[in-house]
Amino acid sequence: MANLSKQATFSSALAEPRPLRIGLLGFGTVGEGTYRMLIDNAASVTQKAGTPIEVVRIGVRDVTKARRAPASLICGDLMSIVEDPAVDLVVEVIGGIDPSLALVRRALELGKPVVTANKEMIAKHGAQLVNSAHAQGLDLHFEAAVGGGIPVIQALKHQLAGNDVPRMLGILNGTSNFILTKMAEGGADYAETLAEAQALGYAEADPTNDVEGLDTLYKIAILAGIVYGGPADLASIHREGIVNLSPRDFDYAKILGYTIRLLGIAEECGPGRVRLRVHPTMVRNDHPLASVRGVYNALWFHGDFVGDLMFSGRGAGADPTASAVVGDIIDVARNRHQGVGSAIPYGPPLSMEGMDSVESRYYVRLRVVDRPNTLGRIATAFGEHEVGLAEMEMHVVGPNEGEIAFLTHKSREVDFKRSLDAIADLPVVNEVAAWLRVED
Amino acid sequence: MANLSKQATFSSALAEPRPLRIGLLGFGTVGEGTYRMLIDNAASVTQKAGTPIEVVRIGVRDVTKARRAPASLICGDLMSIVEDPAVDLVVEVIGGIDPSLALVRRALELGKPVVTANKEMIAKHGAQLVNSAHAQGLDLHFEAAVGGGIPVIQALKHQLAGNDVPRMLGILNGTSNFILTKMAEGGADYAETLAEAQALGYAEADPTNDVEGLDTLYKIAILAGIVYGGPADLASIHREGIVNLSPRDFDYAKILGYTIRLLGIAEECGPGRVRLRVHPTMVRNDHPLASVRGVYNALWFHGDFVGDLMFSGRGAGADPTASAVVGDIIDVARNRHQGVGSAIPYGPPLSMEGMDSVESRYYVRLRVVDRPNTLGRIATAFGEHEVGLAEMEMHVVGPNEGEIAFLTHKSREVDFKRSLDAIADLPVVNEVAAWLRVED
Repeated sequence: MANLSKQATFSSALAEPRPLRIGLLGFGTVGEGTYRMLIDNAASVTQKAGTPIEVVRIGVRDVTKARRAPASLICGDLMSIVEDPAVDLVVEVIGGIDPSLALVRRALELGKPVVTANKEMIAKHGAQLVNSAHAQGLDLHFEAAVGGGIPVIQALKHQLAGNDVPRMLGILNGTSNFILTKMAEGGADYAETLAEAQALGYAEADPTNDVEGLDTLYKIAILAGIVYGGPADLASIHREGIVNLSPRDFDYAKILGYTIRLLGIAEECGPGRVRLRVHPTMVRNDHPLASVRGVYNALWFHGDFVGDLMFSGRGAGADPTASAVVGDIIDVARNRHQGVGSAIPYGPPLSMEGMDSVESRYYVRLRVVDRPNTLGRIATAFGEHEVGLAEMEMHVVGPNEGEIAFLTHKSREVDFKRSLDAIADLPVVNEVAAWLRVED
Repeated sequence: MANLSKQATFSSALAEPRPLRIGLLGFGTVGEGTYRMLIDNAASVTQKAGTPIEVVRIGVRDVTKARRAPASLICGDLMSIVEDPAVDLVVEVIGGIDPSLALVRRALELGKPVVTANKEMIAKHGAQLVNSAHAQGLDLHFEAAVGGGIPVIQALKHQLAGNDVPRMLGILNGTSNFILTKMAEGGADYAETLAEAQALGYAEADPTNDVEGLDTLYKIAILAGIVYGGPADLASIHREGIVNLSPRDFDYAKILGYTIRLLGIAEECGPGRVRLRVHPTMVRNDHPLASVRGVYNALWFHGDFVGDLMFSGRGAGADPTASAVVGDIIDVARNRHQGVGSAIPYGPPLSMEGMDSVESRYYVRLRVVDRPNTLGRIATAFGEHEVGLAEMEMHVVGPNEGEIAFLTHKSREVDFKRSLDAIADLPVVNEVAAWLRVED
């Protein structure tokens, strides 16, 4: 009998293929890209969606600004768009919490499906919003929130859903990956490279969220929420940015056969326990993530059955992000034919593990006094804390001063940090100049 | 009112979470992997599916063979499994047309959803089967048919669906990619390398479908069917295998900065016209597909909005393929909660373009008479047919005999082949030993 009602839905949908009417909230880079894609690719979008898709209203903060869209669509009262009975689907591409969260909540209250590209909102409020959508049988899609046009979110929700996932590693922020790629190639320091990225439009005037790892944190939290089935506590995610990296560390990385990438890492630490972390990482040159350069993003995924997978592509920008938003819109149109929504609910919050139990290889760079017993005392201090040394580079850098870079064997983070404390106190050591975790 | 009936479906599903009961047809590598994954990962599969999933019957050809499954489940009468009212979902992992096609048709007749890993059946009969499933509101999923565990099919159906797709290129057969990787590294000839692949279990005793490109042909046809919205005529797909490649061609590829890959290529040639082709290709070392080694598969996708994307991972084997089959099974379970199916219908057959209009760069290797006027006559013959030469390697290989390898500029295939005919007739040319298309 379920079948009969389904066929009825189909027939009526086929008889009256009325357009899906979109209220587009936000007309910045992503909003304009989405609008343009729906027009430029109208033929294929309509074919795939089974129905025409029309943007009937566009909400913006500043109605006086010139826009590449008919003025008749533009409106400054965003809530009135959400509440307009002529709007079937709310597409939120403003970003941030205020006013996006209130608008999306209101859309769901009114029984309207939502497509959003808003990583901060999904990272912070995704569980509540998605479960509310699910309870009502409404679509709530956010493919564009992570990896721009790379279809990672739906792949994790669906095709890879049967895997237990020991680890996944992502290059999830194009701005910082552009800076790291340039620093590795050019030898310029962080400030110069950031200025170049800003001049090219790859970094914003205030790049804090990108280079301090907050953007990556939101994204790895979203991915972990899907894979491990519950929301991650953002305050429990360890985060370090790329602003303190020195050209010297890129030099040593090169000598040792590595490059430096800002990674978001999610890993299962035991039954029901998950650790999330964001930090610059030395990645060995033959690791697939080492070859992801410039503004590209990538997700490296390890599932117990599927093995190693990698997705890569443009993780930001108007057009790739529009591709993901429009893919979600097409899914909403298809689901509407069947009178269903496909939000997949979140379970209870994840149990979060801290950093002490990390086991990793480490890179460390020391500024030392150039004396006969220097190396011996440092190596002894590592050994006393159960940290084994695997590779070393040593150079004289000035009168009486040397620089030593080590790669350790796999060690417990708690031991490694104790060894650093002891080494920092040695009279032969001027400075623990830098250290990084390592992925082989 | 659509909303109300939906909520009713939800509540009743939540009230009675009855298991999804699978009839598994086939218990070879993939069937056993699927069965094992459903048991090993039962906790996460149940959580993701929202319902327990049980294999209630297993169909095999030879019931006397020992299997890693309870004997009580095993049955030799496959049609009786399809028709068993205790079976909710038919999972077909036998492969080939007979008896798979009849079994799948019968399942759909009975209103049962189907998950299959069968590339040949989907390439040949996908449009008819999928449209039949769609008309009834039934699921018919086949993620495992292409790329093993790499989630390409659903990504093309959904998240990338808004893109117009000028081109996509795939390494879709692990056996031939293993052989090509080994030949590039080891310098052994084709027959030796095939024997090694067979000894390692990476090639079957009869490797014809893999090394002659038929497996790749089925897969690129399936991908094109999704992207371009209609079934491809398999007889109109140009196909060349890897059996005639010589170690000399790998030597020249290396010198010129290339490697050789068996590619399935789909490209839009004009409004509504598509060209599909399968052939060994010289791929420049900095192309993402050049770094896909051994038994790995990859799809490189270019969409007008999303730009360049790449997916890579294990394209075959029990576990990666099981990952895709189980992902599909989970989707069927979720859709059942909502009383819907999500087969996306095919449109009319694609209009297929032939090879004459290909434009490409070409590699060609000639055995020539070592005489003063040899190079001049050959270069003139290329020029007379509008084929420009970009790079050349020339070597003496024996008394009076030389070998010349050229890379041409981009040329029309019809011109290039005419130039080869003219060159083959030159008295200074002993043999057109090999030629390949080139991807930069």
